[in-house]
Parts: sequence; C-alpha cells; structure tokens
Amino acid sequence: MDLADLAARVRQETRINASPRDMERVLAAILTSEDMWRVLELAEVPLLVVCSALRALAAEGRVRWDTGLIRLTAEGEEACARLGIAPVRTLDCPRCRGRGVEGGFLHDVATAFHRIAAHRPEASQEFDQGYVTEDTTIARIAMLWRRGDLAGKDLLVLGDDDLVSVAAALTRLPRRVAVLDADPRITSFVEEVASQEGLGIEAFAHDLRQPLPREVERQFDVFSCDPTESLPGFLLFAGRGVSALRGPGSAGYLGLTHAEASLAKWRAIQEELLAWGAVLTDLRDGFHTYVNWPYVEAMRGWEHLPVRRVPGRLEPWYRSALVRIELVTEAKVELGCVPGNIFLDDEAATT
Amino acid sequence: MDLADLAARVRQETRINASPRDMERVLAAILTSEDMWRVLELAEVPLLVVCSALRALAAEGRVRWDTGLIRLTAEGEEACARLGIAPVRTLDCPRCRGRGVEGGFLHDVATAFHRIAAHRPEASQEFDQGYVTEDTTIARIAMLWRRGDLAGKDLLVLGDDDLVSVAAALTRLPRRVAVLDADPRITSFVEEVASQEGLGIEAFAHDLRQPLPREVERQFDVFSCDPTESLPGFLLFAGRGVSALRGPGSAGYLGLTHAEASLAKWRAIQEELLAWGAVLTDLRDGFHTYVNWPYVEAMRGWEHLPVRRVPGRLEPWYRSALVRIELVTEAKVELGCVPGNIFLDDEAATT
Repeated sequence: MDLADLAARVRQETRINASPRDMERVLAAILTSEDMWRVLELAEVPLLVVCSALRALAAEGRVRWDTGLIRLTAEGEEACARLGIAPVRTLDCPRCRGRGVEGGFLHDVATAFHRIAAHRPEASQEFDQGYVTEDTTIARIAMLWRRGDLAGKDLLVLGDDDLVSVAAALTRLPRRVAVLDADPRITSFVEEVASQEGLGIEAFAHDLRQPLPREVERQFDVFSCDPTESLPGFLLFAGRGVSALRGPGSAGYLGLTHAEASLAKWRAIQEELLAWGAVLTDLRDGFHTYVNWPYVEAMRGWEHLPVRRVPGRLEPWYRSALVRIELVTEAKVELGCVPGNIFLDDEAATT
Repeated sequence: MDLADLAARVRQETRINASPRDMERVLAAILTSEDMWRVLELAEVPLLVVCSALRALAAEGRVRWDTGLIRLTAEGEEACARLGIAPVRTLDCPRCRGRGVEGGFLHDVATAFHRIAAHRPEASQEFDQGYVTEDTTIARIAMLWRRGDLAGKDLLVLGDDDLVSVAAALTRLPRRVAVLDADPRITSFVEEVASQEGLGIEAFAHDLRQPLPREVERQFDVFSCDPTESLPGFLLFAGRGVSALRGPGSAGYLGLTHAEASLAKWRAIQEELLAWGAVLTDLRDGFHTYVNWPYVEAMRGWEHLPVRRVPGRLEPWYRSALVRIELVTEAKVELGCVPGNIFLDDEAATT
C-alpha cells in the first residue's frame, strides 16, 4: 500500500485535491471505528474522498464492509502498522466538547431557545439546509459574547435555519438583529417568534444570489452565516456578509466543514477573505455539530457510501469549524449577481 | 469621546494600526478590571496601543491610575455607557481553559515533565525568550496528538525554551524529535535530559537567521515554534519551519499574541503563510499562557506602562494563540540569510 499512489487514484476519480496525508487520515479513522458515519466524521476529509479511498482500499483487499461494518483486513492492518498509522486520539475537552467556550451560563436563554426551536421548520434540500444542534447555536452565541460581538452590536444573520437570530435576540444584548433568508418558512418562523416573544428581529426574504438590499449594505457590526460549501457558494455567502459590515473592526462568523471542503478549498477561501481586507481571528475546528437532515438518502453523496445506512437524527457525524474574521481595512468585495446553481462543485456531497 | 479620533491619535503616536474597535476593546477591559496586567490581557490589542490609549484617555479626564489601579472617571463611565461598551465576558471553559483539548490523560508524561522542567534554564532577554506554563506545553502536545501530528511523526522544534521536544519525546510516540536553538543553554539542557531519560532527542545549535542545515531541510512532518513577534522575525521562524517540512500534508504549530501583534500584522502573516502553500487549519486564541519572565523591568514596553508594577511570576497576562498550518502544495519559501536584529518592529514590547 502506497499512500501517494492511493491519493493519486482518489484525485483522479474525484477531481478533489487529496494528499497522501488525507489517505493516512482515512486509515486512522478506520483504525478508530468500524462505523461508517464515525469514520466519515473522524477522517476530516471530504466525504467523496473517504468513499473513493475506501473503494480503492477494498479493491486492494485492505478493507471490507460486507457485514455493514468497515474493517481492515489482515493485509490492511499489516500495512497500517508498517506505515506507522495510529488511531485518532479524540482529546476534546468533555465539558465544552472542544469548543473552548461554554454556553451553560446562558441557562434561561437556552431554556427559551429549546422551547421555541421545538417548532422550527424542518431542513429543506431545496435550500441546502441542515441545522446545527441547539447546544451548538447557544455555544455560537457564547462565542459572539466572548469576542465582544453581541452586546450593543448590530447583527445580521444570512440564512438562519440555525435560528442564531432568535438565540441572539433572547439574550436581549444586541442593539439590532436582522435575518436574510431565501426560504419563506424561515423568515415567517422568525417573524412569528419575534412577535410572540417581543424580540424585535427584522426578517427579510432575500436570495443571496442577488446583491444585498441597500438598507442592509454597510449597516452591521457582525454577520453570522453557515454557507453552502461549494467554493462559489461559500464565497457568495461570505462576500455578502462582508458587504453588510460597517468597516474595520466589524466581524463575521462562518461555518466550514471537511466533509465537503478539501484543505485546498479552505486555502482558496482564506486567500479570498484576506484579499477582501479581513483577517482570521479564530478557527475552531469541530465547533458545530449538525442534526441529521431528513433528505440524507436523496443527497448527492448517498450513492457513493459503502454502507447505505440512514444515521439516527442525533447520531452526529457532520461537523464544521467556526471561523471568525474581522475587517482590518475597508472591505473590498466585488460581487454582482451570481446566477444559477450555487450548491455544486466537485466536493459537494450533501446537496 | 470619539473612538475614531482616539484611534487616530494612538496610530499617530505608536505607528501601529489600531482601529476604533481596538479602542472599544481597551475600554471594555477597563470596565472589567482595575488591574493593569489584567487590562493588558483582556484588551487583546498590542501593549503599546493599550498604553497609548490609556494616556490619551487620561489626558481627556476619562481614566486615572494615581492609586495604582486603572479606573474610569465619572466622565469615562458616562462615555462608555453612551457608546454601549460592555465588559468582557470571559466564557472560556473552566475545565480546559478555553483550549478545547485536555492533556489530563497524559498524567505520567506530565509528572515527568514537571520534574524535568523544575531545572530548566531561566528565560533570557538575549534570545527574546519567555516560556509558557508547563500545563500549556502539555496541552500543545495533546493538540499535536489530536491532529495526528505526534504518533509516528518526525518533529522539529525551532527554539525550545518551552521544552516542547522534551514533552513530545516523553510520550514515546514520535519517530524523531529534533531541536534547533541559538541558545547553548537550551541545547545543552535538552541533550542532558535526553541522555538521562533515554529520549533520543537531537539538539543542534543554530541561529535561525542562517538557512537551515542541509540535514534538516525537507526532513520533517511537523514543526513547532513560538516565534519572536516582529513581522520579519515571525516570518523568519515560520519560513524556516516550513522549509523543514517534507511537503503537502506536513504541518506547523506557531504561537501568536495580541500583545505584540496588531490584527494588521496577523493579516500580513496569514497572507505570507498562504502564499507559501499552507492553509490555516486551527487558530485557537489564548491557548498559550506564559510564565512572567525575569527581565520585565528591562523590556521595551516597561517605560510605557502607566503602573510600573512587576507582575507575580504566575500572574499570567501574556497569552498567545495556537496557529496550526498544513501544506497544501509544495512549499514556496524564499528566505536567504536575514542579518541584523530580528526582534524589533513598532509593535514589539517585550524584547
């Protein structure tokens, strides 16, 4: 087994930038768990790369999954030992789950949020939705507070199936909270909740492929979003967010996965964020945990899975990093209309 | 009180890029603590910016420190209220101190490390040293392990007053551990410990202003360093580290503060790291806590401090982010000899 050769075959099949190190990650994940969804989570490389690598390893007789469990064969185990590949050590802090911040102090906010979120709209494939756990949304709010991006600030949420606007407004700390979403179910839900709870959230129906409404441009201290992960789609969300910021010192929060984004894509995204005048101030991998969405069998990656088992709703495998950026200069974003499908690139798997 | 005006005066005096948001950070820190060292820690802007802002605020009658405590005057409090400035909420997880990973499981390693570190060389101003707490070094090792950068890997430590090489080797997990340091006290100490404990660490006396020795170039999977923080000095350490890496999939760990680096400097550093072919995979602010060094009264920033009190040895105020990078392409670093003083730029304060 040669990792460079394996990576080359995976690159050719998937057209995704996968390194020998990524192959090592797939093997380390298989050494750690037999469960496919856990392997996908632990490998921290694109889902389509894991699937392609597994097929290539199976063709070589290194891996098998005829029992529904992903297992190394004796030859596979021998190869891992020879290459010095070790299992993944998950040393995440058990209290904060590796996030570093705690939302526990936000007890009343969390209680109200759980009550409200029980009636949320279900994740829709039409808008490439998939929301994070309620604990994750509360932790994101804790992070905003910790970074001085909540109290007294004007916050814009771009696409809000995570209900960040609701959790933020429940703290009663921001000066202004606004939401843009293309899904009328989300804007209606947020408006209804805002009215019932007296939260004063503004919700606008808006498709981000169109430039921001005038009343939103350069009006906010902070934006929060969880972009679709194709490269053009991610940059579209991020660029609209940056365009909504007032200027130097304004900040943005984004989610970014490994499951649908290679490190080459991460790098392309970071280059663009810097070119727009921003700096990365925080990058906490695995911060966001997602609730499994109902359309998993209809997603693009499904056909590629070696074991086609629908994961439990709260059997999390899809996670994303929290990325915080801050403008250092005036924003330099050139984005007009971006027509067409923004959800697809070679790495997209859940769309 | 106008934050933009205040920032402009600070920029003019310090020649450091300071935003109105940075002025807000200084005020938020003063709202949170009266202790100067705690204000310096919480503000998360360059030390020289905090000092300059404090002097400007005092000249306006907003702040005073004649009692040795930093206090807002009634006018200062009124201005903060009017501007909606809130105290800093430190929501760091109390278990992992916001790091997200735990080194607790490394109990035997930690015990041996504490025993060994008790005899370490004291931090020397000549080499701009200042080491992190022993808990921090153990946490950095936990992070390496979590990211697959420890077991079976070849690790190079560039400047090792933190004794990362010793802690890493004590886990018996890496394949190779090597140290480059210009300070003969460090290389001697590491060699002596390695010999006594049977750790097999290689230590080389080397001044990083010179290109890497041939036997080090492109030979490692991982580098770890805590660079001096002038922009040329930081890039020198980071660039030498990247030059020591094998290629795509190899990783580097760096420390970066706010106390000596504005966000504009962070951005310049990130641009360079990306241009070299790397991506940022982790950026955990406040990960490293430092033991106060013995030459605090001789450091450049001392004369600027409003309250010249020597902090207790374990009264931490100087912290840095953990930055992990990974090569996505072959490394493109062009660094020849870098002669002269690498410790100084406008933002350097502890040199």
